[in-house]
Parts: sequence; structure tokens; C-alpha cells
Amino acid sequence: MVKRKKIVKKKATRAKTKKNVYFFGGGKADGNGSMKNLLGGKGANLAEMAGHPKLRIPVPAGFTITTEVCTYYYDKHGRYPAGLKDEARLALKKVERIMGKRFGDPENPLLVSVRSGARQSMPGMMETVLNVGLTTRTIAGMIKQTGNERFVYDAYRRLITMYSDVVMEKAAGIEPGEGKGIRQQLEKLLSEKKRERGVRLDTELNAADLKDLCEKYKKKVKQVLGKVFPDNAEKQLWGGIGAVFSSWNGRRAVAYRNIENIPHEWGTAVNVQTMVFGNMGEDSGTGVAFTRNPGNGDSKFYGEYLFNAQGEDVVAGIRTPAPINKNSQSDQNRHEVMLKDAMPGIYRQLDAIQNRLEKHYHDMQDIEFTIEKGRLFLLQTRVGKRNGPAAVKMAVDMVKEKLITREDAVMRVRPEQLDELLHPIIDPDAEKKNKFLAKGLPAGPGAAVGMIVFDSNSSVKWAKKGKKVILVRDETNPEDVEGMRAAQAILTARGGMTSHAALVARGWGKCCIVGCGNLDIDYNGKAVKIGDTVLKEGDWVTLNGTKGLVFKGVLPMMDATKENKVLNSFLSICDTIRKMKIRTNADTPEDARKAREFGAEGIGLFRTEHMFYGKGAEEPLFKLRKMILSDTIEEREAALKELYPFVKADIKGTLKAMAGLPVTIRLLDPPLHEFVPHQKEQLEQLAKSLKVDMSNLEKRISLLKESNPMMGHRGVRLGVTYPEITEMQVRAILEATAELVKAKEKVSPEIMIPVVGTDREIDDQRAIVSRVYKEVLKKYHLRKVPLMVGTMIEIPRAALTADKIAEVAEFFSFGTNDLTQMSYGFSRDDMGGFLAPYLDKGILSKDPFQSLDQEGVGQLISLGIDRGRKVRPGLKVGICGEHGGDPDSIAFCYRAGMDYVSCSPFRVPIARLAAAQAAIQGSRGKK
Amino acid sequence: MVKRKKIVKKKATRAKTKKNVYFFGGGKADGNGSMKNLLGGKGANLAEMAGHPKLRIPVPAGFTITTEVCTYYYDKHGRYPAGLKDEARLALKKVERIMGKRFGDPENPLLVSVRSGARQSMPGMMETVLNVGLTTRTIAGMIKQTGNERFVYDAYRRLITMYSDVVMEKAAGIEPGEGKGIRQQLEKLLSEKKRERGVRLDTELNAADLKDLCEKYKKKVKQVLGKVFPDNAEKQLWGGIGAVFSSWNGRRAVAYRNIENIPHEWGTAVNVQTMVFGNMGEDSGTGVAFTRNPGNGDSKFYGEYLFNAQGEDVVAGIRTPAPINKNSQSDQNRHEVMLKDAMPGIYRQLDAIQNRLEKHYHDMQDIEFTIEKGRLFLLQTRVGKRNGPAAVKMAVDMVKEKLITREDAVMRVRPEQLDELLHPIIDPDAEKKNKFLAKGLPAGPGAAVGMIVFDSNSSVKWAKKGKKVILVRDETNPEDVEGMRAAQAILTARGGMTSHAALVARGWGKCCIVGCGNLDIDYNGKAVKIGDTVLKEGDWVTLNGTKGLVFKGVLPMMDATKENKVLNSFLSICDTIRKMKIRTNADTPEDARKAREFGAEGIGLFRTEHMFYGKGAEEPLFKLRKMILSDTIEEREAALKELYPFVKADIKGTLKAMAGLPVTIRLLDPPLHEFVPHQKEQLEQLAKSLKVDMSNLEKRISLLKESNPMMGHRGVRLGVTYPEITEMQVRAILEATAELVKAKEKVSPEIMIPVVGTDREIDDQRAIVSRVYKEVLKKYHLRKVPLMVGTMIEIPRAALTADKIAEVAEFFSFGTNDLTQMSYGFSRDDMGGFLAPYLDKGILSKDPFQSLDQEGVGQLISLGIDRGRKVRPGLKVGICGEHGGDPDSIAFCYRAGMDYVSCSPFRVPIARLAAAQAAIQGSRGKK
Repeated sequence: MVKRKKIVKKKATRAKTKKNVYFFGGGKADGNGSMKNLLGGKGANLAEMAGHPKLRIPVPAGFTITTEVCTYYYDKHGRYPAGLKDEARLALKKVERIMGKRFGDPENPLLVSVRSGARQSMPGMMETVLNVGLTTRTIAGMIKQTGNERFVYDAYRRLITMYSDVVMEKAAGIEPGEGKGIRQQLEKLLSEKKRERGVRLDTELNAADLKDLCEKYKKKVKQVLGKVFPDNAEKQLWGGIGAVFSSWNGRRAVAYRNIENIPHEWGTAVNVQTMVFGNMGEDSGTGVAFTRNPGNGDSKFYGEYLFNAQGEDVVAGIRTPAPINKNSQSDQNRHEVMLKDAMPGIYRQLDAIQNRLEKHYHDMQDIEFTIEKGRLFLLQTRVGKRNGPAAVKMAVDMVKEKLITREDAVMRVRPEQLDELLHPIIDPDAEKKNKFLAKGLPAGPGAAVGMIVFDSNSSVKWAKKGKKVILVRDETNPEDVEGMRAAQAILTARGGMTSHAALVARGWGKCCIVGCGNLDIDYNGKAVKIGDTVLKEGDWVTLNGTKGLVFKGVLPMMDATKENKVLNSFLSICDTIRKMKIRTNADTPEDARKAREFGAEGIGLFRTEHMFYGKGAEEPLFKLRKMILSDTIEEREAALKELYPFVKADIKGTLKAMAGLPVTIRLLDPPLHEFVPHQKEQLEQLAKSLKVDMSNLEKRISLLKESNPMMGHRGVRLGVTYPEITEMQVRAILEATAELVKAKEKVSPEIMIPVVGTDREIDDQRAIVSRVYKEVLKKYHLRKVPLMVGTMIEIPRAALTADKIAEVAEFFSFGTNDLTQMSYGFSRDDMGGFLAPYLDKGILSKDPFQSLDQEGVGQLISLGIDRGRKVRPGLKVGICGEHGGDPDSIAFCYRAGMDYVSCSPFRVPIARLAAAQAAIQGSRGKK
Repeated sequence: MVKRKKIVKKKATRAKTKKNVYFFGGGKADGNGSMKNLLGGKGANLAEMAGHPKLRIPVPAGFTITTEVCTYYYDKHGRYPAGLKDEARLALKKVERIMGKRFGDPENPLLVSVRSGARQSMPGMMETVLNVGLTTRTIAGMIKQTGNERFVYDAYRRLITMYSDVVMEKAAGIEPGEGKGIRQQLEKLLSEKKRERGVRLDTELNAADLKDLCEKYKKKVKQVLGKVFPDNAEKQLWGGIGAVFSSWNGRRAVAYRNIENIPHEWGTAVNVQTMVFGNMGEDSGTGVAFTRNPGNGDSKFYGEYLFNAQGEDVVAGIRTPAPINKNSQSDQNRHEVMLKDAMPGIYRQLDAIQNRLEKHYHDMQDIEFTIEKGRLFLLQTRVGKRNGPAAVKMAVDMVKEKLITREDAVMRVRPEQLDELLHPIIDPDAEKKNKFLAKGLPAGPGAAVGMIVFDSNSSVKWAKKGKKVILVRDETNPEDVEGMRAAQAILTARGGMTSHAALVARGWGKCCIVGCGNLDIDYNGKAVKIGDTVLKEGDWVTLNGTKGLVFKGVLPMMDATKENKVLNSFLSICDTIRKMKIRTNADTPEDARKAREFGAEGIGLFRTEHMFYGKGAEEPLFKLRKMILSDTIEEREAALKELYPFVKADIKGTLKAMAGLPVTIRLLDPPLHEFVPHQKEQLEQLAKSLKVDMSNLEKRISLLKESNPMMGHRGVRLGVTYPEITEMQVRAILEATAELVKAKEKVSPEIMIPVVGTDREIDDQRAIVSRVYKEVLKKYHLRKVPLMVGTMIEIPRAALTADKIAEVAEFFSFGTNDLTQMSYGFSRDDMGGFLAPYLDKGILSKDPFQSLDQEGVGQLISLGIDRGRKVRPGLKVGICGEHGGDPDSIAFCYRAGMDYVSCSPFRVPIARLAAAQAAIQGSRGKK
């Protein structure tokens, strides 16, 4: 029976013989920052921080188990390489020596954290277990060591909760549900205890309360999961490590990787690190900071911290954290004590460290720190996520500061991030007139309008139906990622600028407001109360993510891009690097003017037929319809004559607006039937004007109908069968050109023949162009006018016979919308019937109409360019499909050797960046 | 302005320096039979006949002006190479010496004919001028020389007619019209003269009449054309030569070359040859003969002649000619005297010559001869056209006679000619019961049914509307070619087996009856009277072209191929030579059986959906519709279960009928909407069965509608979105296979997945196949059953990524219908809107759905095969589009390396021949 042809498969044998565990701590490290693929981002950075002589940063000692072990673990169905446990034991010994404590020791016990760490950060997507090593044997030692019984039982309570949830429940095969898992049941016990003791906060419970709670927790775990909570440090450690590896293929992590295009075969490393405690009293604390402001890019140290708390309390957004310094103050945290004031020495040390880190890494760092009884530890450093405006500002600033090169700056901004700078904002006038309902932290810039929903599932469902939704939650967690993705914006009641919602939204450049305290959400009633206002599911709100304001109803939006100096500086840097020209697809003189403001260097696609759509087009459209429904060549020529002045005026206006930049004018493309009216009055009017009766008119219309209009009588096929249509358009272009030449205006028209499949079609049409060209020169007494004649390459056969076509065509413009349709045999209009299952099953990795199918369609493009240039070395080549605005596709176009890409006006800045990145990657690739 | 990139162009400079004129005659010749490209077919054969030592055939001396002169003439806008006239003069001197006469000499004048002669025969498509050299100065000499004044004035009259029409009118730029040209006006004078003299036949006019007529002719010429008829031999000669060259690009010739695919750049040669006269009295005559019977292939000398006539009288069919011998007798000419009896010596000489010629040329020869006052001259020999049955018989016979090799035999029959042997015939029973209306000469075999029309235009117009027409004419001429082409058959009242109608129809293998004398056609009244019966335009007749019988009305037809021994011998020769397998496209057990009779070696395309079409399909179709309109997977699975037994039975029957030959079963391909009923009762029945109301059903139906169904939700896309449909079909195939295996039957099923664009689609479907395969083995307690899983390559992207696809697919079958649609972006259903102008303008040289576009689509095929075999060297490759039955396309498939072609059952014999020819051409090409 059938078998897939075997391709050589890299076996995960490396882990058998190689080093699997990398120690770090005490000024030394086995690894370093360059080993991200092996140690994961977190592990590599911990090694770098601990071991690099220029950094010497206090890091709790620990070790990293490599990503190769993870690969092995999956290949071998959950087994580890043979020597792994011995290696880990040796590393742990070193940690014990440096920290002066012993793991599982009843007297002086070492506690560790077990955390994931992939090559690329996947915040919150995998499991973590803290306080590993606390057992009935070590509790007493811990109490002796810390002198804080309450703290130890609190840590124990946290360990039981986390471990039973992350390790034991997962091992039992239960995926996290809503309010049904062990975690929820344990938290219920906590609430009961608080009620019983008449207190509101966890911190109000005393040691005895917590000790009692721990016993109740363990009983509950046994009862719910049928297993005893392990009372052995070693067992806890390997349970935690296994849980982290397992979580690499958890539903959340897989979904995240699919969204972020992270390969599933990379695997995660595991970091086992000495626990340091930010919750050891008022001389302890924990925080997250950024070397620059990730929200706007300001070059100022920025961070938040919580006294007497563990790290996850900051990220989870349960308490609103305090600012570390003045730069980090906001309306929400202004009343809290700054770290700078509370612990000036620690702050200075931290500030010095963040300075060293940014200089060392040449990029903004996102760092986690803990203060344990007045002692500062860095737990993590990594390149900080930032939103688009911040990314652009940092890139421009760092070039000025000589921290990075111009090329680095260009590579620092993802093209999608520019999108954020181009996002609409609320019309300032409308915003002034409306009182906002609520104010939160401005976690994601731009504005958004949508209908509110209160859970992730509804967000996904409504969005699939094409509705614009805004996800409103108390706080978000990794389970909400898909719903957040589907929403226009996210609004949460709790959490700070470093909360889950803020981090995720920032990564996506999505509008987001967090910590909007006066939101009172009723999940069951599907409503939110804000002051006196009650909003129900489906009600419209408008968010200003740049300021953190929530408005009721729909407010008008406007363009945010005008006069953005930082953006323009950044794009100027891009322009000095890129090698491809950027043109735009524009159909009117106004579009043309707008596109030039965006930086377009020409029009790559002017669709003549667009003058028949939209407002003001009634008269030319009526005349076009008369032409289409003409029965004889005489009728048609008469109608064309009426149409002529409209076409000429439109083209002339556009040519003039582009002031000498090239304008590619495509001859009439769509099947004629598309223009036929459907309303009775319009048909009657037409019949009257054509002097035929309705039945005759209907007969003419029915003759135009096609089974597959996409592959029907359109483009050059119209021009061949109705040469008079081509002639009219060509004359309009050339007379407009001649008149502008006479008026000493600069013009550069390019006639583009669409839907060409063979060189003979262009030959046929070119004969018309040549004749009209001579006639126009004569009429205007000119010796020549500028003109190029080329073709769209959008039919596979045209690409295949590009050598012949280039004998006739002076330029190629790849129409990748149609080229994708024909190459894949996908009708874009009908693809809805199967696109979703195709994406879900991974049969298509992307919608090929969004991002060019480089593997298939790309072959036709490369081959078409090569063959065309073989015959006509100077052949000008561009792209005018919608892929011209997609960064991946732009990079492909550059590699394929195109001279320009053309995209919608709004995408021009993004294309400028993408083209610059492509040029850099191209020259780096060559080296 | 735009210019076509210049490609190096072969300049016609050769003619400047090379020999342009080739003499022949008197046992010598400058050229020989191998020089067809230079001298044309006629010129090369005249040289061969005259000059070859083994032939020594009496040929009137003359010379040939080369085809290169024609090319020069067109390149230089009507000018000749510098030395041409001198060369011609020298050659003419030689002719004069041999013939003992002088051109333009008043005493002993030489007359010549000026004829065209292309590489490939184009009968009647170019001009001829006879009797060149007759002037007022030479008439007297001719009279003295022949002693026949009447004959000379008749020749003069013919010269004036021909010359004024062919040379003078053409030079004036007038294309031949109907009854408006100079020829018609001169013939009117002839008719008037006959009326005036009270005679019926031309031969009844005496010398004085003709002399007077010649004067009247010359006056009329001056009056109509404004120029004097040239009274100078040299001027006449060069006028004639120019007219022949000009006629190469005349409308008729161009149309003929387009039909026959003769390159327009070949050009024609001109043959100038001494006139010999078959009209010099009762010891003179002229005839056309074939070394074997061109109508049935019998190895018997066959021919017709006319006493006292010039050659064109035989061809024009004005008088019914006499048989040369008994083999050539028919009902029409039985009463005429045979040449064998009338001139036994001449006949013996002719018979010996024809024997020498056939042995020399190893092929049946078509010869023209003239007897001038008891002396035999051969005017021409060429390979004789023959109809399909004759071609096949001759090929088989000549192999037996060791005259030719098996390879020669295969190359001797054009694939289209086999078609004639496969033509239907009239059901013999019906034929017996019906009395025929009329009987004529059986000029083209097979039978035809159609509505009669009386002119070429109507034939073309009616045929375009899809009507079957039979063209009825007194006689046909080259102007009628397009109408003859459009007709099912041709029926003429006049002419013999070598008349224009007979020759042309034979070339096309078209049913044709000529010389049907009792037809009385009234062109104006658009009616024909046959005895007492009057048939009007549009009335139906049935023709038996094999017997020459005309029946009124529509008679039933039947298959002619059964038990054709000669055909089977011939195809057996083909089978020993060809290297590709021939499969067939068959959808039912009956089709499968029939295809095996035709020689099919497997089924290349079994369309599962075809069981839902046609008679007897009501029940499965109804169940299919239920399945299609199911709303839930449960509904659909229930409907599939009902459908299952039908599908399985159908497949099992076909597998059994093919007895172990491979059967490629394509999974459901068309968009589901195609199966939805349109009639109200059917819809209601369906709604009832599905237990939904009509509005619900209509909603479901409307969801299936697509804008471009050809590129919509079909083929594997259905299988991916509805895996249960794939599963049902696969189970049916595998259970049918398992049951046949159990019953010790041989089976070889191949599952073919259609509309694949990426390897992942096959992966997805293959997983279903693998699972069902295991389940079926288990159910039937079998360890394995034969099965291959492959794909159609019909999406351009599939060809481009064939290397990936071949990792999964065990075979490729090129679906060239869809591949052509997608590659060209031509919707076959909608192409009518522009196909005709595209062919007319030469933008397409052929309909790409009839004959594969090797330049474009062919690239994808070659590339797909190469890439597929790179990954899977043993990859089985075939074609199952309709191109699989087109000889040119089959040759391409062979060159591209395919293992088989699959075509409709009726085309299988043609494919067997085409594949053998491809193999021969392939190995010849390699040598």
C-alpha cells in the first residue's frame, strides 16, 4: 500500500552523548548568551548575565536543561537521555555550594523554581512551578532559616496549589477548565478560610491559618486527583521538569506557536533556579522593568514593582504595582511609593545594571528582579517587547545614540508594527465633545470601535461572523489568547502595564486598556457596570488606547499618520537602504495625491474601470453600459465616443498629480457583465437610450453571462474582440499625455495590457497603440511623447512563455491575485467554502491571497522574470497584486529581482520598511 | 515608442546568388525527387521522372523556378532576384532545343503551361495558366503546325479567359466574386455565341465562331479591366509566373494552409512546361490515374480519362470521364470505352510506367497523363491521396509485398484517416428496407445524415449553430472549401472520382458522393429535384458514401469497426512498434468492455460521478442529492450509507470487466452544486425525504452556488472538507477489490485524487485511505490487496511542486482539460465569446482544448514529470484529458516520457497508431 517517500530524518540522538545540563551562578556559567537555540532565551541570558565578565550581575544560581532534551523527550515518548539525572545532580551540587544550602536538607533547605524557556519567548504559555523542595521534612528548616513561619506556610500553600494544578492534574490528563480544576477548588478553600476568619486579604491570614489550610489542601488534592501530594524534594523537582516539557505541546502553547509562526519542533529548555523571595517582608519585593518605555519608546528607565510579593503577582495584575521611579508614574500608581524612594541603594544598583544590560545587548531589555531581604537578584533579562510607536522611536533614538547601526534600526521594527502608527485615532473634535465613561492604563495605542463581549469564545465566534468585538475581562490569562486575537481591542479591569493583557496586546500592536478599576463585570448577566452606566453584551464602545479612555457608542475615527516626525525619520533611514521602488495602486487623482504623501514613487496600478464605480460615476457608468450593450460596432463606437472625455479627464488628472512619476494604466480588465445594472429602472433607461425594447436588452445581457467569469471574456480578450475599446482608451491616454507635454508638465505613462496569455495578444494590441500613437503625434504636432507598453503577468502561461512576451512587452507587472487564483485553481470569491478547514488542518499554512505562495506561485514569478530578462535585460518588473503590501511577499519580490512593488496607499510605509529589510537580509544572506 | 525586440531573421539572400531555375526534359534534369523543399512536389517529381536513369519517363520538357524565389518575391515586395530572367531564358533555350520549337516563334511556336508547385500539394488552391505563348504572331504557326484552326482558336480562347482572370484581374486587385468577374463575363459571351449559333456544346462551335469569339473576348477584357490582353509571349510568360507567386497568398490558399497546417513561409515553386494537347482530336486525350485504387486500397491500376480534352476537363468534372481499364469501371462510366481497348499500346506503356513509378517511390502514385496525337506524356506524379480505408489496406498490403517496412506502414496512415474506418455506417437492415433516391460515385466512405444546403456560406452558418448539414452542389470549386469543411458530407451532381469534391473530401476522410447525375438543383429556389421528389433547403437526407447512395430522411446508423481484419492487422503492426500503453476513459462496466474491444489496455479515468448521470441513474442520483444537501455530518453519513451499495456495485462491475488491467478511479470531482435539481417536483421530493421545508432546502442550495465553480469547492477540496465522502468511496473501491480477490479475480485498482494543488492535500486523503485499507483487510481476513494511490495533475501549482507531490503520490495522471483552463486562464464554457476571433487573427493557432498547447501547458507537463521522477524514479505517468486522443498531443506525451495515454473508447485505435508514430519519430529523431 501507499507510503510517503521517506526523506532523511534527523534523529534526536545528540542528546544521548552531549552535555544536557548547563550550570550558572556565582560569577560563572557553562553557557552564554549566544546559545539561545540550545538553552532557550531565558537560560542563555541567565548564563550571559551570570557569566559574562562585563556584566557580573547577581543571579540566583541554577542550571538549564537543554532544548535537545525536550526533543529527545518527545521522540522517546516521555523518556530522558540516560545520564540526565546524574548531570542534573552534579549541577545541583554546585548550586548548593554557591548558595550555601542543600536541596531537601531538613536544616538548611534549598528551594528552586522550575521554569520553561524556549528560543523565542512565549510568555505565560508554558508551565512554571515555584518553591520546589518544600516538604514536611524541610519546612522546619525553612522556618528556622527565615524566622518566618507564616511565610513558609504561604510558600507551601502556593507550592501545593501550583504543583497539583500544573504537574498532578496534567498528569491525570485534565486540561484546565473554567472553575472545575484543582486550582479553583483549592482557591475555594482559601476563600472559605478568609470568610471563616473574617478577613479580606490573603495577607491577613496568619501562620496557623495557613498551616491548617495546607493540610486541607493536601486532603483535597488526594480526594480530587486520587494521588498524594509528593513529600519528597527530588520527586517534586522531576515532576516539575516533566510538567514543563509536557507543556510545550499543551493546547495553549501550540495555539500561540501557530499564531506566532514558531516551529513546533524547536522544544523548550527547563531552567531550575534557586528560589529567592520577594515576599519575605517589607524589605523584600519583586518587579519588572524595561530599560526604555515599551509603550512610547522614551529613553527612560521604566518599571513597576510590588513590596512583599512574588514575581507572578506583578505579571498576573492581581495588585496594581508601584512605579520604580518618576518616569514610571501614571494616574493609577501615582499614590504608591517609588522604589527609588523606598530603597534608594537597591534602585541605584538596579539602574546601573539596566544600563550595563542595554549597552551589552544593544537593545531595550525587559528585566525581572527580586529583592530578598534587602538583596537584589536579577531573575531574567530579555529583549523587551514594544509596540510599534515605541519600536520606531527606539530605533531612531538608538541610531542617534550610536548604540546601533542604521541597518540594525531597520531590522528592529517589524513591518506589522508600523501598522500601529498608521492606525486610525478617534477624531479629536469628537473626542473632546464626548465625556469618557472610564479611564485605564494605556497598554496598546491607537483607537478601536466594537461591540463588547465578556469571554474569549464569544469573541472568536462573533469575529468569525465579521463582527467587530472588544473583549472585556477582569483580567486576561493565557486561555484568553485566541479571543484577544479575534477582538479589535482588549479592556481589563485589573492589571498594570506589564500584565498579561498588556504584554500580549503590545506584541500584536493591538489597542488595549488595562487596570480600568471602575469596571464592574457581571459575567453571568453578560453586562458591565461603569458608574451608573450598564453596558450589555453587544453594546458598542470606542477605546482610545493611547490615552486609556473608554467611550460609550461609536465615535468617528481619523488618520493618525500625518506629521509624524519620528515615523518619517525612520522611513528616511529605510529609504537610504532599500533598493526597490515603492509604488501604489491608485485609481483617481485624489488617491494619487494621497499616495505621494505616503511616499509612493509612482502608480503601479491605475484601474481604468474604477472610474465607473462609486459616487459621481453615474454618468460615465451609464455611457459604459451603453457601450457594453451595443449590438453593432457602430453602436459601440458611438457609445465609446460619448465615454471618451470622461476617461481622458480622469487619466489626465492622475498623470498630472503624479508629476512625472510613472503611472501604469491598465486597460479595461473585468468581464463586461460586471457593469450591467440589475435594477429595473436602470435597465429601462438603458433600453430607451439604446432604442431597443426590454426583451432585446435582456437578450443582450444574457449573452454576456459566463460560467466562470474569472477565466472568461475579459482583459486583453476584450481588447482583441473589440479593438475599438482599446483604441478609445489608448487615445485617451496619449491625448492626455500629449496635452500635458504641450503644457510643459512632466508625464510618464505606461500602458499595461491585462490577462495576457501569449505574446500574440500583445502584438495585436500593440498594433493599435502604434497606430494611435502616430495619429496623436500628428494631431498635436509632436515628434514624440513618453510611453511604455507592457503587460500584467497574471496567467500562468504568460509566466511560462515570458521570453516570448518580453520580446513585445517593455515591462512586466505581476498580478499576483489572479496568478494565485490560476496557479492554485482557487477562486477567491468561492474559497470561503474550504479556506477555514484548509488552514485548520495545516494544508495551507497561510491564506495565499494574503501572503504570496512562494513555493508554487513564486516559481512562476522567478521563472517569468528570468526568462523575460534573458530576452530583454533591462525589463522593468514589478508586482501590483495585493501581495505588494505584505512584508514576506515583498522580501520575496526583492529576492526575485523586481524593480518595484505596488500596494495600496496605506501600505506604502510598510512596504518601504519591508523593502529595506529585504535589502539588508539580501546582502547579509550573500555574505 | 514600443518596439518588438528584434530576433535574428533569416534574410532571403540565398536567392541572390544561388541557382534559381532548374531545367528538366529529354532524359535529363538539373534537380531530383529529393528536392521538394526547393522545387516543390511537382517540380521535384518532374525532375525525378525525367532525369532518373531507372525511370526514363516521357515528360514534356520545362523548368522549375524555386520556392526560394517565392520567398524573395514576398520579402522584396514583388521583385525577383537579379539574374532570374536570364536563367529562365537559358532554360527555355534548352526546352526549345529538345522540343524542336521556339517560344514566340511565328513559324513553329512553343506553348507552355505555368503552374504552381508547393512542397505539399494544395490542389486547386493556386493559379495555373495554360497555352502561354499564343499571340496573333504565333497563331498562324500553330495552325500550320497542327493543321487544326479550330483547335488553335479554342486554345487561344482558353488562354484569354484564364489569363484575364488569373493574371489581369488579380493585378487589378479584384478577388473572385460570384458571377461578377471577367471569367463570368467571357463565359456569357460564349453562351451567347452558342445561342446565336443554335448549338449546345462548346465542341459544336467551329473555327470561325471561335476566332470571332476571341476578338470579342479581347474587347471585353479591355472594356472591363481597362487593359489590353498582352500580345507578346514573353510578357504572357512573366505575367503567368507572377500570378502563380501572388496566388500563394491568395485568400483560398491561405485558408487551405490554415486548415492543413502548412506553414505560410514555405512558398511555392513555379513550373513552366511545354504544353502538350489532349484536345488535338480523337487520337488525343488526357487522364488521371492511381497506381492503386485510392478509394479502397485495392492493388489495382485505376484511372479515368477523356478523349480530346485538356487535363482540367477531367479534374473540373465537366464531362464524366471514361475508365482506363476494367478495374476503373463503375455504374456511371461502364458505357464508355476503356483506354485499354481504345489505345492498347498507349495503355501498355502507361501501365509499365505506373509500375516503375510505384516501385521507385515505394508508394501509391497519383499521375497525370496526356496523349497528344497518339504520343504519351506524363505531366505529373505525386504520392496519391487516399481515404482512410485505402491508406490502411495499402499499408498492410505493401508490408506483405515487402515494398515498405513496418515502420513505413505505420507512418503511411494519418491518425485522422483511421477515423474514417471508425465512422458509423447506415444500419444495413434499415438500408435494405429503404429505396434510395439517387446514386452517384462513392467518393468518400462512411455514412452521414444532415439537412441539405445549397451554398458554402449557408453550410458554414448552419454548422456554427450546431446543425448537421450536407452541402449539395452541381460541382464544387476551391471557393467552396470552407463550406465543405463545415458539412457532414458533400453531394454533387457532376464530376468523377478525381473531381475537386472527391479529392478534397478524400483528404479529409469525409463522406462524399459525386457525379450524381439526376440531381436537378435550383439554387434560386433553394431546392433540388430528384426524379419526382423535391427536397428543400433544411430537408434531411442520409448518404451512404461507401456505395454512393442518397436516401430521403434520417436512417439509423451503426458501428462499422467490428470484424475489420485489415484494420486489426494494421493496428497489430502499430502495437509492435509503440512504447506507450493506451488506456481509455470509461465510466461503466459496459464502457469498459467496449474499450477493451477497441484495444484499451486499462482504464485511465473512471469518473465516479458519471454513475449519477443518464438513464437508470435516478435512484443513486436522488441519494447523492440527499447527501449533498445534508446539513449535518450525521445527515450526510446516513445519505452516504444509502449511496454506498450503488457505488460499490458500479466499481466492482468495472474492475471485473477489466480483468486485472489497471483501473484508475477518480474520487468525486465536480462541485456539488452541479448535481442539484432544478425542477420543482424533484426539489419537493428531496425536501420531503430530507424532512425540511422548501425554503430551508433552497437556502442550502443557494449556499452551494459559486462565482467560478471551475476553481471552487470541488475535487480533493470536497474530500478534505467532507472526509466522509472520501471514506465512502474508498471503502467501496477496497471492498469491491477485496471481494474480487476473494473470488480469485484479477484486479488492479488505482485511486486517483483530483484537483490537487499541494502534497498536503494528498497526505490528508491518504490517511483516510490507509485507515480504510486496514479496516477492509481485517473485515475480509486478507493480508493485502492491490492498490495504488496517485493524483491528477491538473492545477498548475501541482505541476510546479511535483517533486513534493511525488513523495506521496504513486502515479500522476495529467488532467489536461483543467490544466489548460488554469494555465491559459480560459474557461472552456465561456471561451465561445472570443475563440473564433482568436483563431481568425492567428492569436491561437489551434483550439488549445483540441490539441495540447505544447509551448505553454506542455512546459508544466514536462517539468511535472521531470520533478516527479527525480523523487520517485518509477513514477507512473499518464494523461487523461481529452488530448489523450489527439495525435499531436500523443506525440508530445511520448516525448515527455509518459507511460500511457488515456482517451475515449472510440479514439483508442487512433491513439494506438499515434503512439506508434511517436515512437518511430522519437527513434528517428534520436538517430
